[in-house]
Amino acid sequence: MSTPSASPRRVAIVGATGAVGREMVDVLHRRSFPVAELGLFASERSAGRTVETPFGTKTLEAFDAEKVKGYDIVLLAVSGDFAKAHAPALTEKGALVIDNSSAFRYDDNVPLIVPEINAHAMGDAKLIANPNCTTAIAVVALGPLHKAFGLRRVIVSTYQATSGAGAEGMAELEEQTRNQLEGKPVTNSVFRHPIPFNLIPQIDAFQENGYTKEEMKVTWETRKILEIPDLPVSCTAVRIPTYRAHSEAITVETLSPVTPDAARAVLADAPGVVVKDVPADGIYPMPLNATGQFDVEVGRIRTSLIFGDHGLDLFVCGDQLLKGAALNAVQIAELTL
Amino acid sequence: MSTPSASPRRVAIVGATGAVGREMVDVLHRRSFPVAELGLFASERSAGRTVETPFGTKTLEAFDAEKVKGYDIVLLAVSGDFAKAHAPALTEKGALVIDNSSAFRYDDNVPLIVPEINAHAMGDAKLIANPNCTTAIAVVALGPLHKAFGLRRVIVSTYQATSGAGAEGMAELEEQTRNQLEGKPVTNSVFRHPIPFNLIPQIDAFQENGYTKEEMKVTWETRKILEIPDLPVSCTAVRIPTYRAHSEAITVETLSPVTPDAARAVLADAPGVVVKDVPADGIYPMPLNATGQFDVEVGRIRTSLIFGDHGLDLFVCGDQLLKGAALNAVQIAELTL
Repeated sequence: MSTPSASPRRVAIVGATGAVGREMVDVLHRRSFPVAELGLFASERSAGRTVETPFGTKTLEAFDAEKVKGYDIVLLAVSGDFAKAHAPALTEKGALVIDNSSAFRYDDNVPLIVPEINAHAMGDAKLIANPNCTTAIAVVALGPLHKAFGLRRVIVSTYQATSGAGAEGMAELEEQTRNQLEGKPVTNSVFRHPIPFNLIPQIDAFQENGYTKEEMKVTWETRKILEIPDLPVSCTAVRIPTYRAHSEAITVETLSPVTPDAARAVLADAPGVVVKDVPADGIYPMPLNATGQFDVEVGRIRTSLIFGDHGLDLFVCGDQLLKGAALNAVQIAELTL
Repeated sequence: MSTPSASPRRVAIVGATGAVGREMVDVLHRRSFPVAELGLFASERSAGRTVETPFGTKTLEAFDAEKVKGYDIVLLAVSGDFAKAHAPALTEKGALVIDNSSAFRYDDNVPLIVPEINAHAMGDAKLIANPNCTTAIAVVALGPLHKAFGLRRVIVSTYQATSGAGAEGMAELEEQTRNQLEGKPVTNSVFRHPIPFNLIPQIDAFQENGYTKEEMKVTWETRKILEIPDLPVSCTAVRIPTYRAHSEAITVETLSPVTPDAARAVLADAPGVVVKDVPADGIYPMPLNATGQFDVEVGRIRTSLIFGDHGLDLFVCGDQLLKGAALNAVQIAELTL
């Protein structure tokens, strides 16, 4: 959060018309980030169009590297290819560049930051990678558990929302669900298969080992953020017909003994987490409640039937566009205030 | 399947108006079960109403224990309480009673049967329990893997369809999704929370250990069917907005080394299973394809990142009303032919 003494910053958002870019504008406002000037950059096609924002009416500008370099903070909500081509150069005049793509996440010289967990890893880097949405949502719970009990193994099954495929993904869910209910033909273009009343156990491309890249991102990024280079992490990533909150069923094996009560106590004190765990009252993480919220909901915490007193099963849910993207990026920017 | 020599049987379905009861009628027909006479029993409220079936127009009868006892085979698609009260007595005149509820599943004297896996356990019992839908769908894949490689641990996360809550569950999904798309208020009565574009990480009541009864059914029933009394099995059961096919992300640790190719070869030969595992071509288990099918789809088979060459991750999908209920019940009846 901003402090009274923080001097206002000039902030550029590149990819401002996408689902994540639009959330970035909102999050800057919701968190009272001290914005001296807000530049919204998009494709040539969108340039010149005006958009209403909490910071007033803004005119979209075509991306111009020289111009963007002049900002204090640059939030990139663009493709990996675009980021790869432009991000390093954008730091040349001292701007802090926060890239939401996967282009630099596995580069040893680029910090991959979830502020609640590894703010210390920022150092004086000017290019920072924002993690994969599923990973960001998981590690705000896994980080505190690791600190308290040590993680030995992590198994994740995801229930991922269509927002992970951008605004077009959410639109396809809505439009095609409407078609199905009206008895019209159901088609798909954003997703590989029709998404209404279906699920798709594929997100991103398949790797040689049979896991998708999305699944391996969870493995690679969890290791990097938690600084446990050889942590066994396995993920099954599944797209389901929801809009914008990802859920994850997580089984952990711990190094030290752990109880659900001890885990709840640790998580209740953890930043970015809200414990929703009164199951008898129907209180547990759900997209219905997590949508639009900054905090990641954690619940269904119970002693693992597999790993006994050295393990837990839990369920997490977080807004994919917020903690999974825009919020985390703005929180990284806040570390400079 | 029926054989030419099998003498036709008199079959009663109790609970014939529910989602499972209706599927039982269809499955008897689809599998050419030799039906000499079909009795459809329901509540007093439905009695006298006629229904169209593949066996002709039938009149629903009010449940009458004395009358039902006279059939050769009785398929119960009723509540656990109703089954508990009536099932044992229905066997008195020699009828084979197959109960779809959980009332007798954990009774040591009542076989719990998935014909592909443990038909031998039928013995000469007259009361047979039909397993929980999630379990039935999982074990057709887990059984062959256990036989070939030995199971040491099983971790399951489910993606369960609304049909698990009966016809009313599916109707609530459709009706409330329509309401949400039309901007009308969204309510819930079958489910504890609104289901459209949401998920609910609760199915059935919570037990003292923090798992739901649905989750524990998977543990208890998998152990009983696979005859591994102490097998560690852990489940997270989640309701998602789909109609009638359940999916499950499963991680197994095996006693012997296993490769994905070896597992695929075993599963390709397994009855009740269809291997759908050409991920690069977008071929993997999905509700869209599994719905209405007898076979359980198995795919996404890969070496576990947690258990290495002694483990697999896989994904299964099966029709909850078919292999998860009606089909399995009819298959049990077929064992008597």
